[in-house]
Amino acid sequence: MNAKMTALGKKPSKIREIFEYSRGRKALLGEDNVFDFSLGNPSIPAPQSVNDAIKELVAGRDSVSLHGYTSAQGDLGVREAVAQSIEKRFGTPASSDDIYMTCGAAASLTVTLKAICEPGDEVIVLSPYFPEYSVFIENAGAVKITVPTLPPDFTLDLGALEAAINGKTAAVLINFPNNPTGATLSAHEAEKLGALLREKSARLSHPVYLICDEPYRELCYGEPSPFMPNYYENTVIDYSFSKSLSVPGERIGYIFVPSSAQNNRDIYAAVCGAGRSMGYVCAPSLMQYVIKNCVYDTSDISAYDKNRTLFYNGLVEMGYTVTKPNGAFYLFVKSPSGDGNEFCERAKKHEILMVPSDSFGIEGYARIAYCVKYEMIEKALPAFAALMEEYKK
Amino acid sequence: MNAKMTALGKKPSKIREIFEYSRGRKALLGEDNVFDFSLGNPSIPAPQSVNDAIKELVAGRDSVSLHGYTSAQGDLGVREAVAQSIEKRFGTPASSDDIYMTCGAAASLTVTLKAICEPGDEVIVLSPYFPEYSVFIENAGAVKITVPTLPPDFTLDLGALEAAINGKTAAVLINFPNNPTGATLSAHEAEKLGALLREKSARLSHPVYLICDEPYRELCYGEPSPFMPNYYENTVIDYSFSKSLSVPGERIGYIFVPSSAQNNRDIYAAVCGAGRSMGYVCAPSLMQYVIKNCVYDTSDISAYDKNRTLFYNGLVEMGYTVTKPNGAFYLFVKSPSGDGNEFCERAKKHEILMVPSDSFGIEGYARIAYCVKYEMIEKALPAFAALMEEYKK
Repeated sequence: MNAKMTALGKKPSKIREIFEYSRGRKALLGEDNVFDFSLGNPSIPAPQSVNDAIKELVAGRDSVSLHGYTSAQGDLGVREAVAQSIEKRFGTPASSDDIYMTCGAAASLTVTLKAICEPGDEVIVLSPYFPEYSVFIENAGAVKITVPTLPPDFTLDLGALEAAINGKTAAVLINFPNNPTGATLSAHEAEKLGALLREKSARLSHPVYLICDEPYRELCYGEPSPFMPNYYENTVIDYSFSKSLSVPGERIGYIFVPSSAQNNRDIYAAVCGAGRSMGYVCAPSLMQYVIKNCVYDTSDISAYDKNRTLFYNGLVEMGYTVTKPNGAFYLFVKSPSGDGNEFCERAKKHEILMVPSDSFGIEGYARIAYCVKYEMIEKALPAFAALMEEYKK
Repeated sequence: MNAKMTALGKKPSKIREIFEYSRGRKALLGEDNVFDFSLGNPSIPAPQSVNDAIKELVAGRDSVSLHGYTSAQGDLGVREAVAQSIEKRFGTPASSDDIYMTCGAAASLTVTLKAICEPGDEVIVLSPYFPEYSVFIENAGAVKITVPTLPPDFTLDLGALEAAINGKTAAVLINFPNNPTGATLSAHEAEKLGALLREKSARLSHPVYLICDEPYRELCYGEPSPFMPNYYENTVIDYSFSKSLSVPGERIGYIFVPSSAQNNRDIYAAVCGAGRSMGYVCAPSLMQYVIKNCVYDTSDISAYDKNRTLFYNGLVEMGYTVTKPNGAFYLFVKSPSGDGNEFCERAKKHEILMVPSDSFGIEGYARIAYCVKYEMIEKALPAFAALMEEYKK
């Protein structure tokens, strides 16, 4: 038996742990009396077009063709539709041969990392970051190198990034709009990042790839976050429809290897190879065809924006230090005591559930997922006020 | 970039290669004039209950609950339904805590192998075997050891198996009903196999796990193939609904770790850990709920039996040497020249597409997938006769 895997399975992520605690409290107190902001599970329904597409497909399409295998990399028509949507929306050249359909963001990431990294290579992540990055990078046999972003706005620290890149660096993995901070990248930052990676690649005589984990791409409340292939040629996009279409359980996303990327055909082949080696071939077929119909749709994301405004304003008024998020559906709140774990533990007494920031590789904060019902935030605000009162005593 | 993955992606499996060739021929000659027996893609529709369940779920269930995340290991109710079906059908104790829902058989296998093997461990496979086993075992960092089965019926060679097991053996991976031979296991063989593995485990002071890859479990034309947990305690079942429900594109299956298995809780934890490390958490949610409704259903498998009889009798009459398959939907035909590749190449001139047996780790045969329309077999038989005539000249 594999001891590492056993340990990994026995030590569930902090987020899962809170999820289990929450279940217990809800059973005791009732669903509405636990203010659970721990899980990034979309709370708004999928757009009507998703269920309409499912109904149409089931009614109109032959069972063997609907539920049968597609190509390993995904149905050709589906990949064409995805490529066209990229061209239309971002002006980036894209063809079906650059798209690999996957079982959601986790699959996109594990496949991309295994495709790009040789064992022992380094992958730079920017803290705070999604905790599973550590696990996925280890699965690829690579080594995680952490470079912090700069509070309070969690902007890029290009100097630190530059210092971290060396001959062993295979890739830099970024995530904007960001989980857990809600930060987006500015066009100016995107340009600077592209220039830095281009210069470093030239100096090292090998491409330093940029991997963009983009499950929140559609969730921007101001300027859209820059589409990085337009700023840096050696970019690979890992996308998921989980949040944009509110279908996280359905596991559907894609990898996009732009033709601008150096060794584009080799990287795409490596993506196919890595998918094959882990058994990630043919993403769920019904959902692939749904995507073909719904690739331009999103859920009613304005609901998250309303939540964001209510929650952010409420917390700031009470005296909490929060960076206003430009995207995703998370608030990153500074612990009034400076200790993120203490903050989250104390909040539990008010039935508030948040995730302490050390899960994300940084100390002193808590993550709030505001992809919940508006009424829950209204009801929770007095509890946050009471919590702050304790710190003021 | 990972050179191994690039090479793996560039060298598609032989089966995929024939698939592409077939596409070209069909475009040239018309769909019905190419006798394509290369792909194990079910040709009969899913039972009506599958599409009924999808319709009901989409119409009746709240979108957020239907398309949202389930637990990493799968929805509790779904796992309960699967566990109950195992208890009812095989009399084997099973609980929801022993079931891990997966994205189909490939995922079941990659997760199980990574859970059970430490890097460098040996995994024994019985030839002929499904070609992707090599790739999956390598993904787990393990080493594949091949033990041939005994023609003409491809029964277990227990002496050879016994000789191959040593202190490094983590698992024996079997597949009955078998792809490519259609062989099933007899109850007598199952008993002997269990006894051998039990004895070896005792002598080596560590369990030698038996991994059963069972996508064809429901496709037996005589006696059902024995359910191995009833014969050997340290068995892990890797199941897929792809063939039983004719939904291979939907990627839905499960891993069953029986409570009888030594270190059952640790293995299950390792399965959770391996799933997490590769991003295999929460199998597609809509299909999970479909399984809950359809766990006792199968497609109309009698169609395959009709194909089997027509094809087998036809080929034997012409003078081909074929072992009568007891399960799955494959015929394993001996090359009249003794050379499997020569046989498949020559067959192409008659527009017959088969897979040469060296893909399966054995020389001198060709695999025919008879999960096709009955009429296609009728139409192909004269071509097989003409092919045989060439060998008789």
